Amino acid sequence: MSGTNDRKLRERARRVIPGGMYGHQSAAYLPSNAPQFFSKADGAYLWDYDHNRYVDFMSAYGPNLFGYRNQEVDNVYCDQLKLIDVATGPSAIMIELAEAFCDLVTHADWAVFCKNGTDATSMALMTARAYRDRKKVLLAHGAYHGSASWCTPFPAGTLPEERAHFIHYQYNDPDSLRAAAQEAGDDLAGIFASPFKHDVLVDQELPNEDYARAARSICDDNDALLIVDDIRAGFRIERDCSWHSLGVEPDLSTWGKSIANGHPISCLLGADRARDAFSKLYCTGSFWFSAAAMAASLKTLELIKNTDYLERTIAMGQKLRDGLSDVANRHGLNMSQTGPVQMPLIMFDQADGNRDMAIGGAFADAMLRRGVYFHPFHNMFINAAMTQADIAFTIAAAQATAEEITASK
Amino acid sequence: MSGTNDRKLRERARRVIPGGMYGHQSAAYLPSNAPQFFSKADGAYLWDYDHNRYVDFMSAYGPNLFGYRNQEVDNVYCDQLKLIDVATGPSAIMIELAEAFCDLVTHADWAVFCKNGTDATSMALMTARAYRDRKKVLLAHGAYHGSASWCTPFPAGTLPEERAHFIHYQYNDPDSLRAAAQEAGDDLAGIFASPFKHDVLVDQELPNEDYARAARSICDDNDALLIVDDIRAGFRIERDCSWHSLGVEPDLSTWGKSIANGHPISCLLGADRARDAFSKLYCTGSFWFSAAAMAASLKTLELIKNTDYLERTIAMGQKLRDGLSDVANRHGLNMSQTGPVQMPLIMFDQADGNRDMAIGGAFADAMLRRGVYFHPFHNMFINAAMTQADIAFTIAAAQATAEEITASK
Repeated sequence: MSGTNDRKLRERARRVIPGGMYGHQSAAYLPSNAPQFFSKADGAYLWDYDHNRYVDFMSAYGPNLFGYRNQEVDNVYCDQLKLIDVATGPSAIMIELAEAFCDLVTHADWAVFCKNGTDATSMALMTARAYRDRKKVLLAHGAYHGSASWCTPFPAGTLPEERAHFIHYQYNDPDSLRAAAQEAGDDLAGIFASPFKHDVLVDQELPNEDYARAARSICDDNDALLIVDDIRAGFRIERDCSWHSLGVEPDLSTWGKSIANGHPISCLLGADRARDAFSKLYCTGSFWFSAAAMAASLKTLELIKNTDYLERTIAMGQKLRDGLSDVANRHGLNMSQTGPVQMPLIMFDQADGNRDMAIGGAFADAMLRRGVYFHPFHNMFINAAMTQADIAFTIAAAQATAEEITASK
Repeated sequence: MSGTNDRKLRERARRVIPGGMYGHQSAAYLPSNAPQFFSKADGAYLWDYDHNRYVDFMSAYGPNLFGYRNQEVDNVYCDQLKLIDVATGPSAIMIELAEAFCDLVTHADWAVFCKNGTDATSMALMTARAYRDRKKVLLAHGAYHGSASWCTPFPAGTLPEERAHFIHYQYNDPDSLRAAAQEAGDDLAGIFASPFKHDVLVDQELPNEDYARAARSICDDNDALLIVDDIRAGFRIERDCSWHSLGVEPDLSTWGKSIANGHPISCLLGADRARDAFSKLYCTGSFWFSAAAMAASLKTLELIKNTDYLERTIAMGQKLRDGLSDVANRHGLNMSQTGPVQMPLIMFDQADGNRDMAIGGAFADAMLRRGVYFHPFHNMFINAAMTQADIAFTIAAAQATAEEITASK
């Protein structure tokens, strides 16, 4: 739990960082026991500056797939630094990495690398518009695709004009998607789809096949591009694009977060169909051609291909879901657990069915006191460094937390 | 010079990367001897895949300030990886770095960190608009502020609407700036200014005081924000914001490239006046809170404060300019050398005063054959790992190149 040292750090931070912190890592909306700063990371664990250890279910909001400080990946990164990293041109490792992505991801014929998830989604948007020189792009209501001015969820500092040509549809609703496409008419450039619905504050939803197929066929019928934004879920659902097992292949997919196990790299993958459109763009960044991050990603793809990380994270996620469900049932808590078990969102409902943010906050807060970092309204991420013992520890903490909450009612 | 191995790599790259490469590191517009890929970097040197060594005057297009693979900086980066890097929250090193920037840069009361230069300029734009909820922003014709859809120099894939509220002025022309401000009227949000004019393909220009002061006073008179985009020039002109010695302090400044000697981090610095405006934004990125890049930047700021790197790069730049000028005069070449000596742009003119891109390309190409990486139309960067011997080697290469060029006329 956040203590004296964390409070002192927050005080110091407030002087030199507006509001003390910004973006998705601001603790301003988290429970009072959530530390703002962390001093140490190892495998599945984080330590705050008050010497508390947490089993970290946020996994850095996604980047931690194989455990913090994975030695295999970090060694490759530091070894590459000894040869060449950011320079006047890329290293040949860039080609190897592009080839590895094209081998692993069925729809991909080419790859380009960048730094932020938002870089990848922004380039996907521009590629779709450049493809047939059209403007209209369909987005699901409430979906997060980054924080550039065209997509940030809080519009301060942005122009309404920047969103003039977006048309919104309801996730998982093929009729709504068709209506949006009809509105776009012959100016339809593309459709953005999250691999599953993972918006904050609302239950997660897995994609239904009708919706995914409708997205594909609308793009085919209108010569537009289908974009799956796999930044958050990539390689956590499949060893391929997350819609692969639905039988739906996009024209473009966006990746980031876990593709180098925490090292800074993101990418846009494309089918041949979209190759010329991307070539028309001018997109670049000072550090986009970093060989060290590419080497780390290449090693991470190797671990993705050659280990059972996916089966293990799913098994641990299932064990967690079952255990928490059992705890909730025994204590009469209306706990909602949604999304893939390895990317759980855990929230609470009142008896009338409305969301219970108070219980949700109290639950996460009490878990923090017991050494488990749970988020009250954002999906979490099981990582492959977690063990069955960590899951058992977490379920025991939930049991004690549920007792505490029901006793105080 | 680019050889068989580089050609083979380009061939392979073309299959999995659209056009074979993209962005500022594409060799498509460079002389035929410019390699696309590099295998090794050390100090001031780069090696291609055909075993050629280059004295690299591009310095990774800016990031290389203290030499490639600077051991002090790289060791700090890898040591930090052993503690904590990208995690569920930042390390306290973020506060130290923000404090160090505020100590070093006169106008800065706060700092926020990001990954791309474009992240910093995009946040500056949004901060200016959020400050008094206004839309119009003044930009200099031809200035580069990044490659997001609002600023990329090639508009493919972007919307005219995204640039609807920009008004352009001529760099160094206070009257043109005043006219633009008048056009913005009471909707003036801010003014973007490069520290000096460093557009591609045209002579560089140092800022004149009248222009810089006009920019400041227009912002004061209209309660708008002045932004100095120091991404390319930051810490290469001064150990402060580049307009400091002109006596002009901006409200916001943007930094990237060299602030961690090649490690991926950029930042936006602001005065207290702009603090609340930034707090209204939601801007973030998966890797923005990386402790390793922050540790590397902290070490780089230490080197900036405590070494004579600036005086040395200026002295070497002056020696290069004088030496090249001498070579050009002796061979009757109309060589134009513009900008600060440590950020030289070298181009050639025809007898009629028109730019001579043919001679410019031939000169850079011949320098590449002699082991010197010169760019024919982009400003270059002297780095602190260069020695007087490297400059002498470069002048000798220029001498041989000039003889070759005049002999072939």
